[in-house]
Amino acid sequence: MTQLTEARKGRITSQMRYVAKQEGLKPEIIRKGIVKGEIVIPANIRRKKIRWCGIGKGLRTKVNANIGTSPQMVNIRDELAKLKAAQEAGTDTVMDLSIGGDLRKIRRRILSTTDLPLGTVPIYQAAIDTVKRKKFIGRMTKENILEVIEEQAKDGVDFMTLHAGVTQKTLEILRKKKRMTGIVSRGGAFLAEWIIFNKRENPLYEEYDEVLKIAKRYDVTLSLGDGLRPGSLADASDEAQIEELVTLGKLAERARKVGVQVMIEGPGHMPLDQIEANVDLEKRLCRGAPYYVLGPLTTDVASGYDHISGAIGGALAAWRGADFLCYVTPAEHLRLPTAQDVWEGVVVTRIAAHSADIAKGIKGARDWDDELSRARGDLRWKKMINLALDTKKAKRYHPSLKEETCTMCGKYCAIKKVKEYFR
Amino acid sequence: MTQLTEARKGRITSQMRYVAKQEGLKPEIIRKGIVKGEIVIPANIRRKKIRWCGIGKGLRTKVNANIGTSPQMVNIRDELAKLKAAQEAGTDTVMDLSIGGDLRKIRRRILSTTDLPLGTVPIYQAAIDTVKRKKFIGRMTKENILEVIEEQAKDGVDFMTLHAGVTQKTLEILRKKKRMTGIVSRGGAFLAEWIIFNKRENPLYEEYDEVLKIAKRYDVTLSLGDGLRPGSLADASDEAQIEELVTLGKLAERARKVGVQVMIEGPGHMPLDQIEANVDLEKRLCRGAPYYVLGPLTTDVASGYDHISGAIGGALAAWRGADFLCYVTPAEHLRLPTAQDVWEGVVVTRIAAHSADIAKGIKGARDWDDELSRARGDLRWKKMINLALDTKKAKRYHPSLKEETCTMCGKYCAIKKVKEYFR
Repeated sequence: MTQLTEARKGRITSQMRYVAKQEGLKPEIIRKGIVKGEIVIPANIRRKKIRWCGIGKGLRTKVNANIGTSPQMVNIRDELAKLKAAQEAGTDTVMDLSIGGDLRKIRRRILSTTDLPLGTVPIYQAAIDTVKRKKFIGRMTKENILEVIEEQAKDGVDFMTLHAGVTQKTLEILRKKKRMTGIVSRGGAFLAEWIIFNKRENPLYEEYDEVLKIAKRYDVTLSLGDGLRPGSLADASDEAQIEELVTLGKLAERARKVGVQVMIEGPGHMPLDQIEANVDLEKRLCRGAPYYVLGPLTTDVASGYDHISGAIGGALAAWRGADFLCYVTPAEHLRLPTAQDVWEGVVVTRIAAHSADIAKGIKGARDWDDELSRARGDLRWKKMINLALDTKKAKRYHPSLKEETCTMCGKYCAIKKVKEYFR
Repeated sequence: MTQLTEARKGRITSQMRYVAKQEGLKPEIIRKGIVKGEIVIPANIRRKKIRWCGIGKGLRTKVNANIGTSPQMVNIRDELAKLKAAQEAGTDTVMDLSIGGDLRKIRRRILSTTDLPLGTVPIYQAAIDTVKRKKFIGRMTKENILEVIEEQAKDGVDFMTLHAGVTQKTLEILRKKKRMTGIVSRGGAFLAEWIIFNKRENPLYEEYDEVLKIAKRYDVTLSLGDGLRPGSLADASDEAQIEELVTLGKLAERARKVGVQVMIEGPGHMPLDQIEANVDLEKRLCRGAPYYVLGPLTTDVASGYDHISGAIGGALAAWRGADFLCYVTPAEHLRLPTAQDVWEGVVVTRIAAHSADIAKGIKGARDWDDELSRARGDLRWKKMINLALDTKKAKRYHPSLKEETCTMCGKYCAIKKVKEYFR
């Protein structure tokens, strides 16, 4: 059983009930959204009760934080510190993108530590295992890939990024129409390497039915990856990106058909004026499947602040219909993030998501702002600080919680003066 | 003479030529924009050659940084450090909003230090002088106000915020339709206090012709302030705000008529879905006058990160037509900014402005991104870092400038792999 097959049978699962409560909606609304394929609940049947979340139309925009080792930086304690930072900062889900060290051990440790839905990119493990054993990614077999997917599903992974849209056809487009930044997706690049070397089709695409069987068995939500996402403004909305999206739409349909939950991944780097069209296109081509975007970054020059260009693009994307924002940290393009980078990335992405939720009229979103602003109008500092999205930073910036005082304007306080008169 | 009167006579001033060169446009385009009232060049005739900038339609979106003392924090060295930070971070203009210490001395020191256009809010000095001499703002006379405006104009101030739209009529609306956060503009509050105590019309409104005479004599660009800007999402686009905007539109027309350059100030706090309409309305009611917005902040709960909610709103506003972004710092709503806060505020606001410029197709805007992305595609780290908007932070995050290496993916570098194949 999956959430989708249950929903089709008219059954309300405990996950649906949990999500409905979180959202302040009736469980039936969640169920119907799942039937339509507009809502997913990543919830591997092998995991115990966790803090599930619903992702999709009409729901609060969710935020994901990526953690994980690199070949040069392998320290499980660092990863657990990042996990803690992400959770405390309020992320909704976590992805383990480790590519260094003992990948199984790291993943299992993260899974046993967190009570949030966990995502992975199985091709990393499949490719790296192959390199270790056979020196070269090209020697990876379809069995290797399916085994890793099954192993991770058994471990309890709730959603998996699968770059099944990187095909011989899309690579041919890429070869003909040179891009400024080629392929910037690590998983996409692994598969491209494999396809080019073997002169054969992407095994995730060819063996998609097998992948679906595993996903269905454990109710792993598929996150169809955009291996050809633009890595620069110049490459945004190009033929390769759109062709891949068309493919992903078809694959999404096949997943739903057999009762597997599915969402679609999106860019990347994209100018502000292309974002709305991009979201519309995804919703259209993928029949309303939840859209999971990475940014989008609205400029290429903000290194060190890509969490902010990502928040600008993410806010607009989510307002126009994207459902799930993958955070970007200040370390993007520069280094692996630290726990502090993770914290900032989550907070800033939550600001983007919440700004969008206000604009799209998500139930209850504005109440938070109104409560804080009422406190602000009354100069109740303690309440203002406690209601801030990042209470810790707000407190650091305004250590005095004495009511009705403020170092900014002192006796020339505008709020106080006007309040006296209009009382 | 003012830029506007000269432009009307068909003359290209040195300021217009300077601005045209900065923008990569023909001087005649700048001149025509000034004639239409769609472009201003704040350039007090008493200042020597400075780094002028054009603000308005078709030009790069400009960024302003506010500095200034508060009654509790008076230290000219701190202000000069903030000024330096703002300039190094790349602000286009600076405003001195000091309300503590010797206001004249501070302003003159800033003016003699910076080569950027400087703005002020003269009502601060007029009100604070009055409080010092007569204990109460209500005792301020129209002469006091006009004298301060003239004094500041003589000092060389290039643009001045005047809250001439806070009138008996708009205050009456405010009294009837309670707001969540009342008046949050300091200048607006000073004038509201005066109007209510004296039961008379706003002297900036009543004596507007006198104000215009001074502005014309020194070519001070008027920045018609939004004293009733919303201080919370709940108050956005309410009757008081829009009524004030209608008044500002009429005052803008009167300024242009006599040859005074004018721009309009805007919010404030505003949900994402109201920003475009707000910009459209300003352009309509004020006949294309440059729009100078503070944020807008797209949520009320981001204390400590209001520069980011401001960047989200500012990017959207500027893309839809706003011309000038007043920065917001992480200290907004919490304390006076430090030099570090100023730095961050300017950088983040520049990211918003640049993202907007790419989307609105400002000449040459995308070239910067393309150059950086070309370097990124080739893994040329030194060039990537040097082209970053904040080179210092990028370098801090990526200290190794060895080419073709990176701690993120190590040997699993996507860019490298694909490059090899598609070469």
